[in-house]
Amino acid sequence: MAPPSHSYTNNGASQNSVVVLPVQTGTVSPLDSHQLLDPEELRRQGYQVIDFIADYYGRMGDYPVHPSVNPGFLRGHLPADAPSRPEHDAFGAALQDVRDLILPGLTHWQSPHHFAHFPASSSTVGVLGEALTAGINVVPFTWAASPAATELEMVVVDWLAKALHLPDSLMFCGGGGGTLLGTTCEAILCALVAARDRKLADIGSRRIGDLVVYCSDQTHFAFRKAAHIAGIHRDNCREIPTCRDDMFALSPAELHAAMQADVDTGLVPLFLCATVGTTQTTAVDPIRELCTVAAAHGAWVHVDAAYAGSALVCPEFRHVIDGAEAVDSFSMNAHKWLLANNDCCALWVKKPSLLVAALGTEQEYILKDVAAEGHDVVDYKDWSVTLTRRFRALKLWLVLRCYGVEGLRTHIRAHVRMAALFESMVKDDVRFELTATRQFALVCFRLRSPQKLGGEKVANELNRRLLEEVNATGSGPYMSSAKVGGIYMLRCAVGSTLTEERHVREAWKVAQDRAASLLREMESTY
Amino acid sequence: MAPPSHSYTNNGASQNSVVVLPVQTGTVSPLDSHQLLDPEELRRQGYQVIDFIADYYGRMGDYPVHPSVNPGFLRGHLPADAPSRPEHDAFGAALQDVRDLILPGLTHWQSPHHFAHFPASSSTVGVLGEALTAGINVVPFTWAASPAATELEMVVVDWLAKALHLPDSLMFCGGGGGTLLGTTCEAILCALVAARDRKLADIGSRRIGDLVVYCSDQTHFAFRKAAHIAGIHRDNCREIPTCRDDMFALSPAELHAAMQADVDTGLVPLFLCATVGTTQTTAVDPIRELCTVAAAHGAWVHVDAAYAGSALVCPEFRHVIDGAEAVDSFSMNAHKWLLANNDCCALWVKKPSLLVAALGTEQEYILKDVAAEGHDVVDYKDWSVTLTRRFRALKLWLVLRCYGVEGLRTHIRAHVRMAALFESMVKDDVRFELTATRQFALVCFRLRSPQKLGGEKVANELNRRLLEEVNATGSGPYMSSAKVGGIYMLRCAVGSTLTEERHVREAWKVAQDRAASLLREMESTY
Repeated sequence: MAPPSHSYTNNGASQNSVVVLPVQTGTVSPLDSHQLLDPEELRRQGYQVIDFIADYYGRMGDYPVHPSVNPGFLRGHLPADAPSRPEHDAFGAALQDVRDLILPGLTHWQSPHHFAHFPASSSTVGVLGEALTAGINVVPFTWAASPAATELEMVVVDWLAKALHLPDSLMFCGGGGGTLLGTTCEAILCALVAARDRKLADIGSRRIGDLVVYCSDQTHFAFRKAAHIAGIHRDNCREIPTCRDDMFALSPAELHAAMQADVDTGLVPLFLCATVGTTQTTAVDPIRELCTVAAAHGAWVHVDAAYAGSALVCPEFRHVIDGAEAVDSFSMNAHKWLLANNDCCALWVKKPSLLVAALGTEQEYILKDVAAEGHDVVDYKDWSVTLTRRFRALKLWLVLRCYGVEGLRTHIRAHVRMAALFESMVKDDVRFELTATRQFALVCFRLRSPQKLGGEKVANELNRRLLEEVNATGSGPYMSSAKVGGIYMLRCAVGSTLTEERHVREAWKVAQDRAASLLREMESTY
Repeated sequence: MAPPSHSYTNNGASQNSVVVLPVQTGTVSPLDSHQLLDPEELRRQGYQVIDFIADYYGRMGDYPVHPSVNPGFLRGHLPADAPSRPEHDAFGAALQDVRDLILPGLTHWQSPHHFAHFPASSSTVGVLGEALTAGINVVPFTWAASPAATELEMVVVDWLAKALHLPDSLMFCGGGGGTLLGTTCEAILCALVAARDRKLADIGSRRIGDLVVYCSDQTHFAFRKAAHIAGIHRDNCREIPTCRDDMFALSPAELHAAMQADVDTGLVPLFLCATVGTTQTTAVDPIRELCTVAAAHGAWVHVDAAYAGSALVCPEFRHVIDGAEAVDSFSMNAHKWLLANNDCCALWVKKPSLLVAALGTEQEYILKDVAAEGHDVVDYKDWSVTLTRRFRALKLWLVLRCYGVEGLRTHIRAHVRMAALFESMVKDDVRFELTATRQFALVCFRLRSPQKLGGEKVANELNRRLLEEVNATGSGPYMSSAKVGGIYMLRCAVGSTLTEERHVREAWKVAQDRAASLLREMESTY
């Protein structure tokens, strides 16, 4: 944080007053348009950026995952206004600031010590796929607006669906289809609006206030957010409680009871969001049984596999979506654990026509392609919230092609194996306990409260302090917490591309050491 | 389109059966995780990608803007499944396919001959900002999840707001605040949900069906889409007709009448979406007067300046948002005309607390930062539809810093000047007429129907054919059309970073030549 506050050339002066500064002050003239995309400059500065990124990954293990900074720390280092004119070698100076000011203030999601959140996994091909996409910079909102981009998206969502062992009914080749969006919340929102419109067409469009949506108390907030955005009344979102004995999975019997109770009071079950791999403990809702219950009430079933969807690339995990043939829609984030860099959320639906009916647009200025007339082309603007969109298919296609399905399996299995190792070390230490069954690469655990100091409250406080101390080591691991069924637990999510076994062992050693000192302190206090 | 269909190594075999192929077939083993982010490989392949992008821009003028391809053309060239294992030098082979298969099938938005859509403007710094963002790959959904990313976003939206001469009330430094989203539709949706919730808190949450939203018949479909997603009844979207005499601007008197009529029938005016620079003709709605009308009915005013917002960097355009002090929210796409590459939509609101009330979340697993406690930090997940988000601020900060506000003005003015040139050439040719007043860098024009063949229908058909023929030249310009007030017109939007005066002159020459031959044909027919 050493560099002083920048002043640039305008010293915060209003942009209204054009101050023409002589060249010798170190400023340069405003660029003319030839310079904005000059191939040689792009090459020169591009190499700098590639080197910057490569150096960043090379040194990643040296960064503390989470910075020690206070709110407002960056603002003080930056001028209040954009510069009027660029300083000399502005790009080089800016890169230097990224290195000196910005990197030290980031949480390094790519650090091998990052165990806190589900990963935002990065790979060489993912990074470069994004770079290439940005360079090509097309906007494939209709087929005609960039045919190859739309077609590659259609091909690659089928590739991915097959690689993940999804049912044919969700693929273009099976009558369904998929698209690439930014995030799960968008995906759920699109599915929900399609479901809502279908239902309102049946029961009358004025009955939006009677529609009810269902999830468990473990479902990600993204669902409640999507439902709220879509105009579902806040009172009509049923969060069905789960319990530890059921491994925090949504109970079909409870869902049935909730839907029946709503029907009995004149409400209309609309939508179930089931989760495969919940955020807090990676619980898996039983899809087959839930679909049966939902079908009896004409409710749409969406599966949110944001995190665990990537694991489906391994046949040994296929069982977690048994019964998926019956779902109406399915989404997963390839940017989470499948090396596709942020952002890349895949959404598949069984009946694309319902998405188009809900989200479709027709406007005169949109160019139709003569070649496309009479053909069943996809205009992806009608499949999502957004009209403008990025060419995300290119990145995902490169990742699948360059790593191959087997490569992705190897990647997933390595993390699962490391998580199993961490789990076994927890099990072997009697001071600790596992607080949820490990299903993928997340381990939930806690320090047991010494017997003489019973009560969940004490245990929770103990573990809250343990997390704080583990995360305070700076050079060590960064974990997070969950509170489920009244139990506060630590979450260790293995998922960073750079994480190796040694990082997992180190993380465990830090947890053990901090626990030992906390326990000593407790014993001396009481 | 020469290369034959790929087969990769699995020949479309199911991914369930793991076929282990010997190395000598040209396949390589699945990667271990060390190889996924190896700095030296990243450097080597990264340089290839940079060279690829630089070469693409170097040759951009040689590509036909729009490809001659038929639906399904790409599918036949790609295998039905992702490869099981990568082929030898998969990355190099994939880049070759991008060159040979994908580029020829794209609509080249960066071509200097691209005049069809509002630009998706690219710049060296925009491209490399995206690359750097993808390399750093953090997910700044909360302050704690990457403090510097959140803080840079807060700084850069204020920088941009000042550069665009927006009112202080929309800036953090003036009590408001901004965020960077993907698209305008997202921005409008966020503002609309905030407005909806505020209004429903007043009138009762069950009255969603009584809410009415307003726009003109020129407003982009994104608004109607957003309103529909947010649960506003389709019957409650008033599209107020505009007319050519008013330059297709929304009439405050008409808005007042529409709102009053709704109030008289017990409905509740909720939201006005005003546009500065409509898609079809770049019409500018009179913000000050519209705000006065909306205020009388307690309606939220959003300004959509998706395209023309970039022009506000020039003081000479400030007048188009006179009265903006009264608006509740404002959005523009820096990825359209401000060199920030797709995607980068800035949304500002006067009262961020209303966004957070509508879109906010609290969940236990979200790490709180001790340093942030008690401080008024922004968690941007509560400002948007999405929770996961990209570090877009880095790119926009680099663009502002490296080009400077003066550089951006030079860029905008060059396009405005070229559009004025095109306009003057249309004016000078008696066979043509301008069909809307040029305000920024879009020229709307048409070929007059020869006097002996009167009637709008004939004129429209003539211009429809003219567009078809202009766009069919392949190596020439690519334009689009609009139909406004019953008049079919051609749209020539100057905005590609690479467009120079000679491209504009060429485009006009093509239009003249095609027109001459069409007119000759007409005269010989009748």
